[in-house]
Amino acid sequence: MLRHFEEELDELRKCLLEMSGLVELAIYRSVLSLMRRDENQAQQVLENESRINQMQIEIDDRATRLLALEQPVAKDLRFITSAIRINSDLERMGDEAVNIAERSLLLISELPCNAPVDIPHMASVVESMVRKSLDAFVRKDAEMARGILISDDEVDELWDTARRELVCFMQSDPGTIVQSVHLMFIAHCLERIADHATNIAEDVIYLAEGVDVRHHSEVREQ
Amino acid sequence: MLRHFEEELDELRKCLLEMSGLVELAIYRSVLSLMRRDENQAQQVLENESRINQMQIEIDDRATRLLALEQPVAKDLRFITSAIRINSDLERMGDEAVNIAERSLLLISELPCNAPVDIPHMASVVESMVRKSLDAFVRKDAEMARGILISDDEVDELWDTARRELVCFMQSDPGTIVQSVHLMFIAHCLERIADHATNIAEDVIYLAEGVDVRHHSEVREQ
Repeated sequence: MLRHFEEELDELRKCLLEMSGLVELAIYRSVLSLMRRDENQAQQVLENESRINQMQIEIDDRATRLLALEQPVAKDLRFITSAIRINSDLERMGDEAVNIAERSLLLISELPCNAPVDIPHMASVVESMVRKSLDAFVRKDAEMARGILISDDEVDELWDTARRELVCFMQSDPGTIVQSVHLMFIAHCLERIADHATNIAEDVIYLAEGVDVRHHSEVREQ
Repeated sequence: MLRHFEEELDELRKCLLEMSGLVELAIYRSVLSLMRRDENQAQQVLENESRINQMQIEIDDRATRLLALEQPVAKDLRFITSAIRINSDLERMGDEAVNIAERSLLLISELPCNAPVDIPHMASVVESMVRKSLDAFVRKDAEMARGILISDDEVDELWDTARRELVCFMQSDPGTIVQSVHLMFIAHCLERIADHATNIAEDVIYLAEGVDVRHHSEVREQ
């Protein structure tokens, strides 16, 4: 029975990794679509959304079944409740990738403009945060998780710069308002994805050390 | 022991209601601040954020303790896992109210403009969704919850109209770009709050009927 439970926990971990793989791919493709003005990449993100949604329900079911049948305590209980939260964060990241893909399709239908916003750089920081948050989860590595909290501050600054510069750009050339608004929302989606990766990192710290660092800036700043 | 468990569940329910009361007040004040150009209302939202964050941690702790100590099954288990998700949605609504309050403070520092966006109407629909989602939760009323899914479609349309009209407004008068961008993000925050209320409504349906309606538009359209 104990052996079986360990296997079930391992299966849950694998499902979360598979889900994060799908989500990472969706983020990557949505940004690629934007960079290359490639409708096909965006379409693939839209088509794969239902797979991510389906996986969310499967993982929730799996976790709830484990809570009911195995009645875990201590660190196993903490692992399963974290898995439920991580699952929800992953699904919301997938939603943001869909939002980016939809905005990308709208942008492709507009004239290109040289907006002063470095989406590829912002995306690469965010994609690395997502990857590391799941790595940290698998390894129960609180140190790696703390690195993600620092990257989140960097993304907040990038977002802040992006929105200020896009407003100036629109003011200087009102012909670019439509494109600039789309780009601003895309930057905002990336900032949201970073927030979700941060939630996962906080869960990893909770899992590894039993310390809840949500809403505690003094712990984050260590 | 059983009696004690019932009391604990009731306590968890009361905590969620108290939290939703704080969140509703935050949303109300953030919009009031915008309408009346009243910095004081926005400041109160910012000051009360830590109380909401604190409550989120308390409720999560309470729910996890119940899972560990009481090892509930069937509908009690479903209630507690739903409570964890509802707690997270409420906290994120609180974050959106903070975002609105911050944007409101920025708008107050700008010249007023007659932007064609009916924030008060959108806010009143959204506030009613939030209130009803918690009412439906307390009463385990799936019918009321389904009404919220319909209101969400209405809010999506209001958001769609708002963003299109604000883009036209900026194009016709580039002097209003700063204000219009703030208003667009405020409308977006309201749309997000409606999404969270919808998540709660979906949890209520799951609680009342054991049916998971997330990502199933065919069920939502019944």
